[in-house]
Amino acid sequence: MFDFTLAAADPHTAARSGAYNTPHGPIATPVFAPVGTQATVKTLTPRDLAEVGATLVLANTYHLYLRPGVHLVQDFGGLHSFMGWPQPLLTDSGGFQVFSLAQMRKVDADGVTFRSHLDGSLHRFTPESAIAAQEALGADIIMCLDECPDPLDRAYNEQALRRTHAWASRCQAAHRRTDQALFGIVQGGIFDDLRVESARILTALGFAGYAIGGLSVGETKPQMYATLDVTVPELPADRPRYLMGVGAPEDVIEGVARGIDIFDCVLPTRVARNGGLFTRGGRLNMRNAQYAADPLPVEPGCDCYACQHFSRAYLRHLLKAEEILGLHLATIHNVRFMLRLMADIRSHIAAGTFAAFRGQFMAGYRLPNQEARHAQHAATLARRQTERVTR
Amino acid sequence: MFDFTLAAADPHTAARSGAYNTPHGPIATPVFAPVGTQATVKTLTPRDLAEVGATLVLANTYHLYLRPGVHLVQDFGGLHSFMGWPQPLLTDSGGFQVFSLAQMRKVDADGVTFRSHLDGSLHRFTPESAIAAQEALGADIIMCLDECPDPLDRAYNEQALRRTHAWASRCQAAHRRTDQALFGIVQGGIFDDLRVESARILTALGFAGYAIGGLSVGETKPQMYATLDVTVPELPADRPRYLMGVGAPEDVIEGVARGIDIFDCVLPTRVARNGGLFTRGGRLNMRNAQYAADPLPVEPGCDCYACQHFSRAYLRHLLKAEEILGLHLATIHNVRFMLRLMADIRSHIAAGTFAAFRGQFMAGYRLPNQEARHAQHAATLARRQTERVTR
Repeated sequence: MFDFTLAAADPHTAARSGAYNTPHGPIATPVFAPVGTQATVKTLTPRDLAEVGATLVLANTYHLYLRPGVHLVQDFGGLHSFMGWPQPLLTDSGGFQVFSLAQMRKVDADGVTFRSHLDGSLHRFTPESAIAAQEALGADIIMCLDECPDPLDRAYNEQALRRTHAWASRCQAAHRRTDQALFGIVQGGIFDDLRVESARILTALGFAGYAIGGLSVGETKPQMYATLDVTVPELPADRPRYLMGVGAPEDVIEGVARGIDIFDCVLPTRVARNGGLFTRGGRLNMRNAQYAADPLPVEPGCDCYACQHFSRAYLRHLLKAEEILGLHLATIHNVRFMLRLMADIRSHIAAGTFAAFRGQFMAGYRLPNQEARHAQHAATLARRQTERVTR
Repeated sequence: MFDFTLAAADPHTAARSGAYNTPHGPIATPVFAPVGTQATVKTLTPRDLAEVGATLVLANTYHLYLRPGVHLVQDFGGLHSFMGWPQPLLTDSGGFQVFSLAQMRKVDADGVTFRSHLDGSLHRFTPESAIAAQEALGADIIMCLDECPDPLDRAYNEQALRRTHAWASRCQAAHRRTDQALFGIVQGGIFDDLRVESARILTALGFAGYAIGGLSVGETKPQMYATLDVTVPELPADRPRYLMGVGAPEDVIEGVARGIDIFDCVLPTRVARNGGLFTRGGRLNMRNAQYAADPLPVEPGCDCYACQHFSRAYLRHLLKAEEILGLHLATIHNVRFMLRLMADIRSHIAAGTFAAFRGQFMAGYRLPNQEARHAQHAATLARRQTERVTR
């Protein structure tokens, strides 16, 4: 159980491909995990998920702890059974959402006390209770409780790191179920020395896998990539590496190039519900008038149900008319886009052609322009505290 | 084309079963048509619709005329092609929605002028333009433009009936496409003599099929059933009879018993989105706390995807968490419920056992109690004018 077989390594980058075995089947890596926050990847049935090629799916302990409650899920045989997903699952510890609650939480050495964003009721997570909650949920991969500071705030990161490491050790001691792999989470913001220290301490503790947390929450992309550059080499090569909460297509390519095996992100599903459709040429805003009479599928050549059956014009009509089917079809496409991208990445690593593929992809993929990105970045920062809760 | 083959007649009631052939395939009757207001049955893909056993699907000319526009749909090869539904379609004339606009429309002998509920822009439907719009959309069954008065207002019904009959004649003259069946619509409110007069005038004009309009919009159920009792016998036996906008399970049973062949209604899909799930025992409010830990499917024995894969507890969780998947699964179940009910009705008519089935069904199906129904009725009346627009 939890064998990690590395089958190929790219000769020009740190990219690698392989298979991570779990009690609910193997995960071909590098993998992108769609996010099923509340025990559902928004708008998709398990059948839809299987059809788009999902293997690993993520769910949020914070949300499920509050509603419907982890013991109810446990009584239903765990999350796989409750939500009807027979393939691998990963739960986070709940820490990320709790630390996003801003004024509604208070951290101490032993844990974190917080108020529910649903009804304001008071709750507490400790390393031990976060593990207990995840053991009740029963995902294949579970995460240590960590503290998630602003990645740019050095003083806060230094302080938080001590707690994160102490909590990692307590999570390890508390964890009982041998059919779950417990991953440690490297923190340290954008500070190279803190990241290296964190990676070394967690590696010394010895986890089934290692996550890199606290990124894609305020730093720039170059800062994120530079952080990966110094952190990944400190992690054991024979364990899976998971970059948490990162999943823009360009970030996945750059993460893989730096040796990341696992990604998760709400971006493809959230963007879909706003009418943003991924293509290899960039993101299309399907609500734009230019698609009103466009007979093409969202992305010619895509094998998803939406692209195989419907025009951009129909999808735009659905989105403009605020029809749920529009959100559903857009989500199917974006998740399939990510999973096709991952399959292509794995093929190119196996063939030794990943570096060329990376270059081609980045040349063809039109990023939002710099100005738009800066504006978006500022807006993201402003919205961050509320948004993170709903990840 | 448009052969209507009656295969069986119930010996004890006016129920009959058969097949209505259309350019997009046969419709086994009696049939329930799910409503795809804006060229989508809310939350369902065409694949879902086929899986639950839909044949005839309804779309609303008023909505599609405003958005995305009937000529855009025509440019995409018509509604079947635009929305990806290869089986039979029916469009209404748009009259029902326009007459629901209350202060936003003005009727004259030639047609009706109205303001869009979307942007307040001014538009006009005449019998000729309503047919032209429906010819552009290209459904298999299309409807005459009619005036839809309050069923309890005799003076208004007398006046409106003259226009409805004149418009039916003009629709007939305007209709060109031989691959579309044009149905006339009998009006007359709850007034027996007006209904008989309307049925006779329309029958004399000679339509491919006959609809009974203006019911289920304010009168009581006994009034509706009594109106069917006097109207249906006036319609030619060899043409399909369509009871517009009616689709509560008990009303379908009672309508079939009175000789109705076609039903449509938003009720099963709208109620689903509010968490109301149909079973043979009555409607369950799946948001209720009593289902929080219920491991049963919505309706044991149901073959729909939702019942085959998920517990009431999971569905309740999704609905409480306002997850789109909850709306989707509830809709799948309710539409499948209606289509299984219709299949059972057809089998029992064929076997000569419909009367017994009707008795069993009505004995087992718990109607909302009288008080709740009166309250609901009053609320419906109050909301009617806005709701009708969004049917």
